[in-house]
Amino acid sequence: MALSMDYTRLFCPRGLAVVGASAAGRIKFGTLFTKANLDCGFEGAIYPVHPAGGELFGLKIYRSMSEIPGPVDLACIAVPAAHVHTALEDCLKKKVPWAQILSAGFAESDEDGKRLENELGYFPQNGLRLIGPNCFGVHCPECGLTILPGSGFSRRPGPVAFIGQSGGLAVDLGYSSPGLGFGWRRMVSFGNACDVNAAELIAHFGSDPGTKVIAAYIEGVKDGRAFFDAVKKASCVKPVIIWKGGLTESGARAVMSHTGSLGGQSAIWDAAFRQANAAPVSGQEEMLDTIVAFLTIGEFTGRGVCVAGGGGALGVAASDSAEKMGMYLPRFSNETRAAMQALLPPPGNSFNNPADVGNPMIAAPMLEQIMDIAVRDRAIDIIMVIQILHHMTCVTKQEMDLPKDTSLKSIAQHKAMAEVCARVQKLRGKPVLQILPPIAGEEEEIEVEALLREARRVSHEAGVATYPTLDRALAAVSRVSFYYRRRAVLG
Amino acid sequence: MALSMDYTRLFCPRGLAVVGASAAGRIKFGTLFTKANLDCGFEGAIYPVHPAGGELFGLKIYRSMSEIPGPVDLACIAVPAAHVHTALEDCLKKKVPWAQILSAGFAESDEDGKRLENELGYFPQNGLRLIGPNCFGVHCPECGLTILPGSGFSRRPGPVAFIGQSGGLAVDLGYSSPGLGFGWRRMVSFGNACDVNAAELIAHFGSDPGTKVIAAYIEGVKDGRAFFDAVKKASCVKPVIIWKGGLTESGARAVMSHTGSLGGQSAIWDAAFRQANAAPVSGQEEMLDTIVAFLTIGEFTGRGVCVAGGGGALGVAASDSAEKMGMYLPRFSNETRAAMQALLPPPGNSFNNPADVGNPMIAAPMLEQIMDIAVRDRAIDIIMVIQILHHMTCVTKQEMDLPKDTSLKSIAQHKAMAEVCARVQKLRGKPVLQILPPIAGEEEEIEVEALLREARRVSHEAGVATYPTLDRALAAVSRVSFYYRRRAVLG
Repeated sequence: MALSMDYTRLFCPRGLAVVGASAAGRIKFGTLFTKANLDCGFEGAIYPVHPAGGELFGLKIYRSMSEIPGPVDLACIAVPAAHVHTALEDCLKKKVPWAQILSAGFAESDEDGKRLENELGYFPQNGLRLIGPNCFGVHCPECGLTILPGSGFSRRPGPVAFIGQSGGLAVDLGYSSPGLGFGWRRMVSFGNACDVNAAELIAHFGSDPGTKVIAAYIEGVKDGRAFFDAVKKASCVKPVIIWKGGLTESGARAVMSHTGSLGGQSAIWDAAFRQANAAPVSGQEEMLDTIVAFLTIGEFTGRGVCVAGGGGALGVAASDSAEKMGMYLPRFSNETRAAMQALLPPPGNSFNNPADVGNPMIAAPMLEQIMDIAVRDRAIDIIMVIQILHHMTCVTKQEMDLPKDTSLKSIAQHKAMAEVCARVQKLRGKPVLQILPPIAGEEEEIEVEALLREARRVSHEAGVATYPTLDRALAAVSRVSFYYRRRAVLG
Repeated sequence: MALSMDYTRLFCPRGLAVVGASAAGRIKFGTLFTKANLDCGFEGAIYPVHPAGGELFGLKIYRSMSEIPGPVDLACIAVPAAHVHTALEDCLKKKVPWAQILSAGFAESDEDGKRLENELGYFPQNGLRLIGPNCFGVHCPECGLTILPGSGFSRRPGPVAFIGQSGGLAVDLGYSSPGLGFGWRRMVSFGNACDVNAAELIAHFGSDPGTKVIAAYIEGVKDGRAFFDAVKKASCVKPVIIWKGGLTESGARAVMSHTGSLGGQSAIWDAAFRQANAAPVSGQEEMLDTIVAFLTIGEFTGRGVCVAGGGGALGVAASDSAEKMGMYLPRFSNETRAAMQALLPPPGNSFNNPADVGNPMIAAPMLEQIMDIAVRDRAIDIIMVIQILHHMTCVTKQEMDLPKDTSLKSIAQHKAMAEVCARVQKLRGKPVLQILPPIAGEEEEIEVEALLREARRVSHEAGVATYPTLDRALAAVSRVSFYYRRRAVLG
């Protein structure tokens, strides 16, 4: 029979059975998983299943799958590897369409594990699709379905689909997105991929209208052709960001221990990524940075960056970094330079791009005028404006002779800056990013961090992306530009 | 006459004249500089100088240098470029040995500025040494001498000397060090370097017993031979970390606007750095990371890294990164693996290095045992242990069913972990680093950040370095290892 692909049942199950949840051992994965989904406000029915019966967090524990009264669309299997087969047989009898197998001890461990994993092939053929084994399963903010430890995941849905062979990574990403101003469509940690795999998931999210960006963490694929066909097809309509782990000798050994995958050779993967126009990244931070760029700067194909604010060394670093990443800081036109100098005369300010306003205290309306001149320069495609909130507030406090206990938020211009960036961006149709470096990591300076977080939030709410460093912004933007330029060429 | 080199007078001046501080315009650099030094608790005498006289922050303003009663070891010049010459003549008459010229408008601006800068050459020849122009000057925690805006700089001295052509960078670095657990010996922002230059400063700090590490930000040098001779000599006895800005086309233009320097060619600088055994970095973050590594891991020449804790994807990423950086994650010996498996049996844990303990809740005493096995493996030279405090505390709260308002600090094991790492490090003489990734950047999660900062502090106090990501730790450690291996070869 054809494999079932009714993903609505997987991501928004009416009933969720948790096989391995028990009243006795609270430290068990199944028990913790039940609690996480209760805490996250899962909207379907939760059915803990354990032969001993009893009650768990106010929920009845069913002694077997067959006792469950309502429909079960997803079973979460959290029993030792040797008992997984029996649990899945019960699912088949109950006509459960999807199961996620949290249990480890399969192909990633030893020969016995490999045999156990091979035997799982029977179930998908008979109508029970499998996520895992050795995975954390599925998260869907829409219905509150979560993974472990994801009880605190945001319920605000967004347009990004994550698929990956690492559960820990899914957890890190899940907790990172709210602070970066975006939400998830769905997350799938699929571990060893005995059935549902990267190719199928990329094909699914490629044609899912709710998904604008796909991000994937891959350790190995069994069918390279199918995988790259899926990536190529999806990337014609939306960006597919891929982090491929295990492309070095040590890395290859690590993926073998982790998900029983074969790492592969760097040169082959690089070539395939280019052909399929994937956006490759090489770490968690890069993945998040790139997602943010794709979500905020639109179908960007430019290369000319204007850097405004900051200070001399930052501008120099930006220029060096941009060039290494295929971007550049074009020299301003004479008109641009003259217009800027009329506003902020030298010495102390220089306007060859970077627009180095040698003063951390430049007020938002003045920066708006500088940026508005910059975006009118034909060579400029994007503006990155640096605000070092810590210094600015230090100087402002000192200059105004304010009392030591003046709150930073009351004197900072972060709200005005968010508005200014949004206005310039909208008016001229060229993206504006804010660079908000985190300076001062001491315990006593936690107020600066609180201000930074508020500044990021108001900026994100205004549709303006923020990055902690220019380097990270430049790297992310260069990937967006490269992707859309290639897409135009590949047609 | 020979140039004066009495650096004690520069860094710990008995009297500091501030030319350009005035009672009228508080926004003036000289005025703000005076305030910054008062706030920082400068221990010498401060003499504001302005023809109008009056009083400033309770200090008498002298109408001229000649009126100042006590000795002046350092004059800070903050008047427009055209008036700098006259101000320096007054310094000569007063027999001031050092002046730092904050004023911009010299070689970095135009032909007039170049002429003005050339004319400054007269003063050093006559006994008045110059820092700058177009700089922020000198910071010395020992006596409380600070730069602008550095009123909040820590007074805790340390073993790191920073010299650089960027004042803004000095400010960023100055505010960053306390959160990283180290202090400065001195910082010198020397801008256009019309007199005191990088070669002289590196020679000075190279033979200064209070300096253990030199960090330099260079945009251009006028005498390349003298510079590299100084670096080579210094790096025989202590690490010289160098960030060279302006090595691309855009970067070269930026350094010209910033400090009037010539950028130079990447290949030439790279070769010279290798010959002189400098430790090159390419940004502020890398500079700080590398300083921390040199200060904490000692004369490290190893390459074999053990990664413990974290999760599968982190371990894979670590393996890939390490190999790119000339380090590697050796496979554990059979004895090591067996000993670890006896403690934490599979499934869910794997011990091929990374030591992937598939659980964020591993208690410190158990991690100590794992690490203690790892350091006894001959292939292991250093341990990097990952603690994701956010997840750990989430899970612990859930597992223990603690009230929602339980403070994270009360349940986190960060203090125990700092002790454990310090103990393992001391016992076996192999460095242990903690990786503390910052997850959860929302405003509501600020408590996690507070915990992170406390965790970093207790770790630093125990002599254990911390990094936010494995990549950054690996990059920093690889530079230390490379430096000491080269030093052994160069003998």
